[in-house]
Amino acid sequence: MILVLKENYDKKQLENLTSWLKEQNIDIHLSQGKQTTILGLIGDTSALDIDMLSTLDIVETAKRIQEPYKNANRKFHPDDTVISVGDVKIGGGNFGIIAGPCSVESEEQLCTIAEDVKASGAKMLRGGAFKPRTSPYAFQGLREKGIELLLRAKEKTGLPIVTEIMDLSHLPLFKDVDVIQVGARNMQNFELLKELGKTNKPILLKRGLSSTLQELLMSAEYIMAGGNSNVILCERGIRTFETATRNTLDLSAVPLLRQMTHLPIIVDPSHATGIAKLVKPMAVAATAAGSDGLIIEVHNDPPHALCDGAQSLTPEQFADLKKSVDNVLPFACRS
Amino acid sequence: MILVLKENYDKKQLENLTSWLKEQNIDIHLSQGKQTTILGLIGDTSALDIDMLSTLDIVETAKRIQEPYKNANRKFHPDDTVISVGDVKIGGGNFGIIAGPCSVESEEQLCTIAEDVKASGAKMLRGGAFKPRTSPYAFQGLREKGIELLLRAKEKTGLPIVTEIMDLSHLPLFKDVDVIQVGARNMQNFELLKELGKTNKPILLKRGLSSTLQELLMSAEYIMAGGNSNVILCERGIRTFETATRNTLDLSAVPLLRQMTHLPIIVDPSHATGIAKLVKPMAVAATAAGSDGLIIEVHNDPPHALCDGAQSLTPEQFADLKKSVDNVLPFACRS
Amino acid sequence: MILVLKENYDKKQLENLTSWLKEQNIDIHLSQGKQTTILGLIGDTSALDIDMLSTLDIVETAKRIQEPYKNANRKFHPDDTVISVGDVKIGGGNFGIIAGPCSVESEEQLCTIAEDVKASGAKMLRGGAFKPRTSPYAFQGLREKGIELLLRAKEKTGLPIVTEIMDLSHLPLFKDVDVIQVGARNMQNFELLKELGKTNKPILLKRGLSSTLQELLMSAEYIMAGGNSNVILCERGIRTFETATRNTLDLSAVPLLRQMTHLPIIVDPSHATGIAKLVKPMAVAATAAGSDGLIIEVHNDPPHALCDGAQSLTPEQFADLKKSVDNVLPFACRS
Amino acid sequence: MILVLKENYDKKQLENLTSWLKEQNIDIHLSQGKQTTILGLIGDTSALDIDMLSTLDIVETAKRIQEPYKNANRKFHPDDTVISVGDVKIGGGNFGIIAGPCSVESEEQLCTIAEDVKASGAKMLRGGAFKPRTSPYAFQGLREKGIELLLRAKEKTGLPIVTEIMDLSHLPLFKDVDVIQVGARNMQNFELLKELGKTNKPILLKRGLSSTLQELLMSAEYIMAGGNSNVILCERGIRTFETATRNTLDLSAVPLLRQMTHLPIIVDPSHATGIAKLVKPMAVAATAAGSDGLIIEVHNDPPHALCDGAQSLTPEQFADLKKSVDNVLPFACRS
Repeated sequence: MILVLKENYDKKQLENLTSWLKEQNIDIHLSQGKQTTILGLIGDTSALDIDMLSTLDIVETAKRIQEPYKNANRKFHPDDTVISVGDVKIGGGNFGIIAGPCSVESEEQLCTIAEDVKASGAKMLRGGAFKPRTSPYAFQGLREKGIELLLRAKEKTGLPIVTEIMDLSHLPLFKDVDVIQVGARNMQNFELLKELGKTNKPILLKRGLSSTLQELLMSAEYIMAGGNSNVILCERGIRTFETATRNTLDLSAVPLLRQMTHLPIIVDPSHATGIAKLVKPMAVAATAAGSDGLIIEVHNDPPHALCDGAQSLTPEQFADLKKSVDNVLPFACRS
Repeated sequence: MILVLKENYDKKQLENLTSWLKEQNIDIHLSQGKQTTILGLIGDTSALDIDMLSTLDIVETAKRIQEPYKNANRKFHPDDTVISVGDVKIGGGNFGIIAGPCSVESEEQLCTIAEDVKASGAKMLRGGAFKPRTSPYAFQGLREKGIELLLRAKEKTGLPIVTEIMDLSHLPLFKDVDVIQVGARNMQNFELLKELGKTNKPILLKRGLSSTLQELLMSAEYIMAGGNSNVILCERGIRTFETATRNTLDLSAVPLLRQMTHLPIIVDPSHATGIAKLVKPMAVAATAAGSDGLIIEVHNDPPHALCDGAQSLTPEQFADLKKSVDNVLPFACRS
Repeated sequence: MILVLKENYDKKQLENLTSWLKEQNIDIHLSQGKQTTILGLIGDTSALDIDMLSTLDIVETAKRIQEPYKNANRKFHPDDTVISVGDVKIGGGNFGIIAGPCSVESEEQLCTIAEDVKASGAKMLRGGAFKPRTSPYAFQGLREKGIELLLRAKEKTGLPIVTEIMDLSHLPLFKDVDVIQVGARNMQNFELLKELGKTNKPILLKRGLSSTLQELLMSAEYIMAGGNSNVILCERGIRTFETATRNTLDLSAVPLLRQMTHLPIIVDPSHATGIAKLVKPMAVAATAAGSDGLIIEVHNDPPHALCDGAQSLTPEQFADLKKSVDNVLPFACRS
Repeated sequence: MILVLKENYDKKQLENLTSWLKEQNIDIHLSQGKQTTILGLIGDTSALDIDMLSTLDIVETAKRIQEPYKNANRKFHPDDTVISVGDVKIGGGNFGIIAGPCSVESEEQLCTIAEDVKASGAKMLRGGAFKPRTSPYAFQGLREKGIELLLRAKEKTGLPIVTEIMDLSHLPLFKDVDVIQVGARNMQNFELLKELGKTNKPILLKRGLSSTLQELLMSAEYIMAGGNSNVILCERGIRTFETATRNTLDLSAVPLLRQMTHLPIIVDPSHATGIAKLVKPMAVAATAAGSDGLIIEVHNDPPHALCDGAQSLTPEQFADLKKSVDNVLPFACRS
């Protein structure tokens, strides 16, 4: 971290600051120019509060020159992380598609879709048991029962299952779930992240609606700091002024995260756009941009889905998407 | 809700739709024009998924004409709600300031500040025990110990206390807390909201960084649908492209929420701006705009605060702010 | 357009409104339900001010059901527009890359780059003569001299040239320019758009930093309403809260604009991201998403470029990008 | 400006950089730490391209420590600028309200409103002659004729007039206009700003929909660099994800601009909110926050206004607003 001091800073206050920094095990490199005095702070500055330092009377400006994330940082872990879920691998050149309905509705619905998407080449099954809904009056998911149905679909098809957790008290229900999803609204539910850090389950961490990429990595860092490095990042659109799509899919996030971190990065074009017709072109674009995978909503009867029907594909549309993705995959930009 | 049908819609599909809607206890008023066919859906449409309906093959566009919130809606509850916290009242013409440090650090720190802000006219004491921090390496709050210290400060000063909950499993620790704060990052932690709906505690519900006012009211609705109508709304800035302030304080939210809901609305200029010098002008502006109260960060030694020092006022600055607010209060716009 | 009336609307005011609407040649279809009264406005509603109508005392809500753009609307022009620039075609399955330096600096610089990008397969040459710069103290472009140099590069290489206009008074200088670019900051410079509508030059219209897709099409409509239908749309990133990239490239705009309009759509990944390393993956992703072309900054010596060096590719990097784009092009999503 | 070099930077490249910087009359202060090497660039760095510098192979990060605006900077001009328009003064403790219709429609309409707002205490008359409209099919203003009518209203009432310019070629028509308004969409029409810099007219410069405060000041700097320092800044809302208001009024801009610049700052609550009922509370809040003035839309017959009726006040509502503003004005935060 670098602190630029104000022109006529108080010497006494500088002494106070340097002695406080030394207590925090930070070394200081002072550079005294004619007009500008600069402090270079050396050591582990990740716990320093840059906002607090920049407010000090003697400080003109404070700037981090190192990223505040360590476990997730590619600088310290140059090789791609590969996440194994049963026989399925994601990351490090292993590309996979997760598909399934927004909500688990019934055993029949789920198993039909599961078989369809498996036949088309999906590697994992997704399905919502606990559903975060804006309205308390909307369908909230089958909850425990939904997880049971997912496990039954897994038994039948062999597909590992991915489903969302909404509260840490539900964790015991997720014992047999293969990948636990943290939704966009919970990306900064730090108590939940800490608990997930104590497990060794793969975690699918979705970017928050108004979260920067650095904040996404800091949330991954919460999980990893607890000892669980099985984190898959997911870009799913950010909230902007544009209302023609539900969110704005930020595909630049894929190559940029690739530089910042060694963790796998997948893309959710269904929730990002909210429009079924945009799912395939955005899935193909995400693949071309170097994504490690996709998560796609598929429903056997979209107009009657209990939630998010507008963005679900039919199994036929999903099969077509899979083919288009396969065509582009060999030419994806991954460096 | 209104559905506009496509020009050459399939009659059979319309029959399917109308029979499904009738199953949901929705009455239908069909209006057949030369070019445009419109369905007016009458009844309790709050559980209907507008996204799903708008994706149907025969539907051109779907539009709600009623708000999806009921308990929070001023249309159905024209009178202002007044929240009582001990002897303190907020709402319906009762204005109050909540003040205190970002984090509870020690008994001495907390009690000193508590006495200072009480002397200047604060009605309640705030202080963070559980702290949501972007980084896992940053100070996470004194947690249980922090709540103990808050209760001790309450004993000494008589000020009711306000502190943030981060997970529903912590709820028993908040037994003696007067007002439970739900932070911006948890505004859509729906499981937490449901639990809080089962209590009768006043809840201070902060607007999420990228939440619309309607979403804020839907989150209030989660709490109220559970039976707890003691909800205080708090505007605390939204995330925009502007980086000169930490967030963009949306003061229009105050008079607009006033029309939409009967719940009290307060403003947090400290977190919104993140800059101590802007806190007073924004506090005064919020008061002028008709806010029912303010929540202000005050620290006896800002530069050494363990978090958010940049935005904390000294007790002297707070006393000055209070005077300025009092000057403007009689002329506030409240209709 | 649909107007939903308030429950107890004034009959006299409704008469006033309907007679005013008839004066505007709008037919009215009244639908009287038990609770809801709806007016369907039939005819050319594009000149009606929806904001004004929605503010009327008797109106609960007003909603457009037809797009306010006509010339640009695919509904009325189902076939793709193909823009011809000399022998080069853009749109309707014709894909082309425009490449060149941010600023024209010298004849040698420009001609070297022009020959390099031509050899790699660029179809047109771009280069800034008039430069919109945030600071009045930054290099403002070679202006007239820059256009001369572009014309000389065209003579040498045969590449049509694309360059930005900043004010309608400069139009005579663009007599021999092949494609006139309207920059993001001028997307709503309506007087300029009207003047360009009187020419028959192809216009490259960039999306504004905070413009919706509908606003982009309304700006195209300004040009087309004047008689010039040679408009190429360009997605170049929108302004959001994310600061890791200069702007957020909105690739969903490509398939969405494809549905909304018949005009060609190209993508500028250089200005969108502002980071050289992201240009290739985003160019390939844009191609996969169905873009009709790309506009790419190339500089023979990026670090000394007088502007925007951070996002320029070297000619070698451009040749590599071209190959990657060509690989994906056969599999692009265009339906 | 500060450049932090990469750990293993190339010595030869550093020499190239330093000699190039010296050519630009920049002095360099090199600070060599164990791990970090920092260059302090001293001199007039306002023309240096920070994006270009940060892209150099040897540079880790580049940071400005001085603002890139000079003429508009309070550091170099500590005293408030006071703009005189006839007998009216704005800035430096002089508060004034500009009021009038969105569009000039007729002599009768304009003069009636002008007399009404004058009677209520408005200091200047606003009215749109040239209207920037999103749609080419919407009313574009009376143009030349509109300016004539404004001058006639000035004659009758003595109120100085404020009206918007849309293109520099129209400048001769503005010869007798008292204050020339640059609208939000033209805030970065740099050719127009340069021309206005050659006049000595007061310029009312509105913040762009997606412009930062620093960009607003850089646009003021364009005008001032040309020799015209009569610039009044206007906050009029920024574009965000919230759709309940037309834009999000950023009132923090008022005290923040106060610190950054000596220029007067006024607020436009009519365009910011787009909702008549919010105009008064936001006007009063802006006043309390320390604004130097307001610009308010007033129409004698809002529902029939040719544009922006939804946000216009009646003369009676304006008179009421003026009283509320006057009540708060003595207690405004101006330091």
